[in-house]
Amino acid sequence: MKGDLKMKEVKIIGESLSNMPWQDRPKGKCDPVWRYTENPIINRNPIKGVSRIFNSAVMPYDNKFVGVLRAEPINGRPLLHLGWSENGVDWEIEEEGIDFIDEDGKPYQPRYAYDPRLVKVEDTYYIMWCTDFFGPTIGMAKTKDFKTFVRLENPFLPFNRNGVLFPRKINGNFILLSRPSDSGHTPFGDIFLSESKDLKFWGKHRHVMSKGGNGWWQSMKIGGGAVPIETSEGWLLFYHGVVNTCNGYVYSMGAAILDIDEPSKVKYRSGNFILTPEKWYEEKGFVDNVVFPCATLHDADTGRIAIYYGAADTYVGVAFTNVKDIVNYVIDTHEAIEGDQHLGRI
Amino acid sequence: MKGDLKMKEVKIIGESLSNMPWQDRPKGKCDPVWRYTENPIINRNPIKGVSRIFNSAVMPYDNKFVGVLRAEPINGRPLLHLGWSENGVDWEIEEEGIDFIDEDGKPYQPRYAYDPRLVKVEDTYYIMWCTDFFGPTIGMAKTKDFKTFVRLENPFLPFNRNGVLFPRKINGNFILLSRPSDSGHTPFGDIFLSESKDLKFWGKHRHVMSKGGNGWWQSMKIGGGAVPIETSEGWLLFYHGVVNTCNGYVYSMGAAILDIDEPSKVKYRSGNFILTPEKWYEEKGFVDNVVFPCATLHDADTGRIAIYYGAADTYVGVAFTNVKDIVNYVIDTHEAIEGDQHLGRI
Repeated sequence: MKGDLKMKEVKIIGESLSNMPWQDRPKGKCDPVWRYTENPIINRNPIKGVSRIFNSAVMPYDNKFVGVLRAEPINGRPLLHLGWSENGVDWEIEEEGIDFIDEDGKPYQPRYAYDPRLVKVEDTYYIMWCTDFFGPTIGMAKTKDFKTFVRLENPFLPFNRNGVLFPRKINGNFILLSRPSDSGHTPFGDIFLSESKDLKFWGKHRHVMSKGGNGWWQSMKIGGGAVPIETSEGWLLFYHGVVNTCNGYVYSMGAAILDIDEPSKVKYRSGNFILTPEKWYEEKGFVDNVVFPCATLHDADTGRIAIYYGAADTYVGVAFTNVKDIVNYVIDTHEAIEGDQHLGRI
Repeated sequence: MKGDLKMKEVKIIGESLSNMPWQDRPKGKCDPVWRYTENPIINRNPIKGVSRIFNSAVMPYDNKFVGVLRAEPINGRPLLHLGWSENGVDWEIEEEGIDFIDEDGKPYQPRYAYDPRLVKVEDTYYIMWCTDFFGPTIGMAKTKDFKTFVRLENPFLPFNRNGVLFPRKINGNFILLSRPSDSGHTPFGDIFLSESKDLKFWGKHRHVMSKGGNGWWQSMKIGGGAVPIETSEGWLLFYHGVVNTCNGYVYSMGAAILDIDEPSKVKYRSGNFILTPEKWYEEKGFVDNVVFPCATLHDADTGRIAIYYGAADTYVGVAFTNVKDIVNYVIDTHEAIEGDQHLGRI
């Protein structure tokens, strides 16, 4: 990493969040991202009847923090539970899963629900998750109070995962990243972007980022992670990249900067991972060797960012960075990967 | 098949087409569908530089017939060629592939294009095909004169195939069948339906028909075939069903009746295939054992239907039926297959 004097100034465009969790970078370290020393923040068997909570989303709400958590009950079929926290690291988890209603007000329960993301657009909170629609695809629901959750129609046909809605409209349209897949443990996958005026009808699909490049950590597939953070350099996206080894998939975390007005255009992406499974809670669990970012908390005043990630499909971990550090790291290690520039294909 | 006296009267709702090709059912036969005696109507090496034409779409146009043909040039990467015919069976095929332009009027050439369908909605003709969008998905273009072809944006993300637009709007919306897939020789697949007000933004996705049931011929996957025919009993859909044998896939033809106002609802579907590879040109070719319906010609006055199908990924064949015969056959052999009734999932 370059010395501070050469680094670009970068600002988060957004709100203050002075009560977000934070630890300074460990003395003597220069990694772009560093782990919370008390990880994992959610351990095995966190509540009665739930064996593991991981790949989960958090947001500020009502001067505290709300979480939409991927909970695997003791029958192994994942559902979403709410969690509440004063400090972002100690979580009270609701014992019952989220109850959805449909747009007519009738009860609606997804057959399964996993890998949630959570975002506020204007005055409404939206949850995206992987749902069943005769195969996995992206589910969506909205809430204003975290009490009533209205399930919206699936934006896409199967097979799709890793739906990530942007935190504001661009040119009047909602913007959603997704990672088209197949019906199983998909051995391929790029990130695409789609637009909608009303969250009902979707189109203007664009290819955003390809798997591959010189680094092998993202050679098999990639997928959107946390809701993008608006910065003075563009949209900062934390995403996951996967390599297929002789003993299974390994999930690492990368970062990219997308154009602020045309977010299907990649400005920069890190040729290196920024976090990879190294700790006991990332290396070993229900699915070994997984670091899977799903959310951030961030403070526009200080540029601090806390990244929430699932670890080994078993735990929730937190890692920290600063917008100036991470954006400069992505710029410095940028690798243009074939396919990211559209090649004329839309 | 029941005797004529018990058969329901069924009418095609549509235009007259007295010049369509036709042969009566062979004497003494009672099959619901029978082949044209001079099949295949397009043979190997039909024009210079093209080794095979198969899975192709036809329509009446300007008192003759137009075809949008899947042509495999001698490099093996498929493109679409136009064909013209006075009688529907003898075809003059253009030596150059279709030139598309994009919506700004600039040249647009798909990297590959296969399995076209062709339909007229209001005053415009639409072509759907399988196109490349960082993986296969449904391409779409429009024309009014078969001279200028304007490519529209892809309605869906990858991975998808077998896009079939209905010949009229329903409740003000365009209706498109598709068969979500994976990136290869997909070993699964059901038929879904999507709606659009403008052909740009798509939503209200519904599951229509599942693979499976008691019959094995459609046990691995199914996909929409010809543009549905409006009848007094509902939308008559010819589709393909696939079984995976120890020596490869076998594609047969089935038929279904979809509800006229809510075509995601299956009224009836044939538990049996209505055509399966038996003839030399269906059994043996570039891909053995394929019968793949892509289009029909039909006459509202007589109820006659000519089904155009690809044979063994090598030839074009024609088969005949009559709306009354085929609809009664589908009703008589109806099998309710799990998943067709939505099970509350949309």
